[in-house]
Amino acid sequence: MAKKTKKAVVLLSGGLDSATTLAIAKNKGFKCYALTFSYGQRHSIEIKSAKKIVKSIGVIQHKIIDISPAAFSGSALTDKSIKVPVNKIINTARIPVTYVPARNTIFLSYALAFAESIKAFDIFIGVNATDYSGYPDCRNEYIRAFEKMANIATAAAVQKKGRYKIHTPIIKMSKARIIKTGTRLGVNYSLTHSCYNPAKNGKPCGKCDSCQLRLKGFDEAGLKDPLKYKK
Amino acid sequence: MAKKTKKAVVLLSGGLDSATTLAIAKNKGFKCYALTFSYGQRHSIEIKSAKKIVKSIGVIQHKIIDISPAAFSGSALTDKSIKVPVNKIINTARIPVTYVPARNTIFLSYALAFAESIKAFDIFIGVNATDYSGYPDCRNEYIRAFEKMANIATAAAVQKKGRYKIHTPIIKMSKARIIKTGTRLGVNYSLTHSCYNPAKNGKPCGKCDSCQLRLKGFDEAGLKDPLKYKK
Repeated sequence: MAKKTKKAVVLLSGGLDSATTLAIAKNKGFKCYALTFSYGQRHSIEIKSAKKIVKSIGVIQHKIIDISPAAFSGSALTDKSIKVPVNKIINTARIPVTYVPARNTIFLSYALAFAESIKAFDIFIGVNATDYSGYPDCRNEYIRAFEKMANIATAAAVQKKGRYKIHTPIIKMSKARIIKTGTRLGVNYSLTHSCYNPAKNGKPCGKCDSCQLRLKGFDEAGLKDPLKYKK
Repeated sequence: MAKKTKKAVVLLSGGLDSATTLAIAKNKGFKCYALTFSYGQRHSIEIKSAKKIVKSIGVIQHKIIDISPAAFSGSALTDKSIKVPVNKIINTARIPVTYVPARNTIFLSYALAFAESIKAFDIFIGVNATDYSGYPDCRNEYIRAFEKMANIATAAAVQKKGRYKIHTPIIKMSKARIIKTGTRLGVNYSLTHSCYNPAKNGKPCGKCDSCQLRLKGFDEAGLKDPLKYKK
């Protein structure tokens, strides 16, 4: 159990995984500083969800950083000319078209800058290697390489004021286990958003990879997804 | 010597070091894609310099990315409440107040995303460990840790389409040698900007750390700095 006074930066997308990760960090006793990115993603509605989640769970500060959509290209999440795949669970042997070049590296770099500026050494990220093993930057091997780099990159680490640790509490959990854990910690999943293709009124499609993984997770957890899906 | 068709992403601040780095990359035969960041730094005049430099040296594409100034805090380069030190060369045993948390990590992360999206595997950065050994993220050890992480982080690397290489051609050069090298390659140093505290008309102060290192470099190279300094 961490000391009550320890600060942590928590990456929060507004989705189910990162909301659960925030609840876990808080439950471990960290003072949480949430960090959300706005980068022209189709599911910008996630940012609204992120705001509701921090209000519900409680954080010291919620920082929202705009990232130029120009930074990412060639991905279905940011490029409207690439179709988001529907009605099939991600083939984990291949890298999905929803992969965004170096996305987690950019996100973790900002988290590192934020952490150094507030004198925090703990960063939480809700990557998951079970459901999303197709993403190279969701693997433990990647996270450890980033952590090693972070401990060479920064003044705070070089001056031995602390060692950065990248926490990935849900990396090995199934979606069902994530949902059970979050439910136990009081996460209100009606505030979270997972859909890649939401309707104009914000309702999730229920068909994209992300919706399907979510629905399967609730099903396997024996719980009901509180979200209302598009008919 | 690289093949003429090989692409490289070159980080370009508009300063003397990165302009020289771009000239070196071009001279090695790379097709260069320049990447400049605008992040509310006091010396935003550097961006204008970067535009002139790419016009003078020639690149395939020049991408300018806005970074929210909120991403960085506690540094003299972005925080107006911290005074930029003048009239003393950086004490290399300490980390200067002009250090910006995780700056090169954020820059290299964007360069990595850009590289992956254009199918380039070579990234050039004009870090220098001689004049700026106080910056942890200018050391070779840091660059190699980033490179290692990059080769785990990305789809292109995981799919064995190539290996990312972070080139640091001037990392061990003295300022004088950088200037001599650039001069030999035709860099027009009158287009570059180094000052942390420029006058409103853009003229460099001649007193800040960066101006002093530049002037000392020209002096030691036996060359005249083409810039006009504030009286």
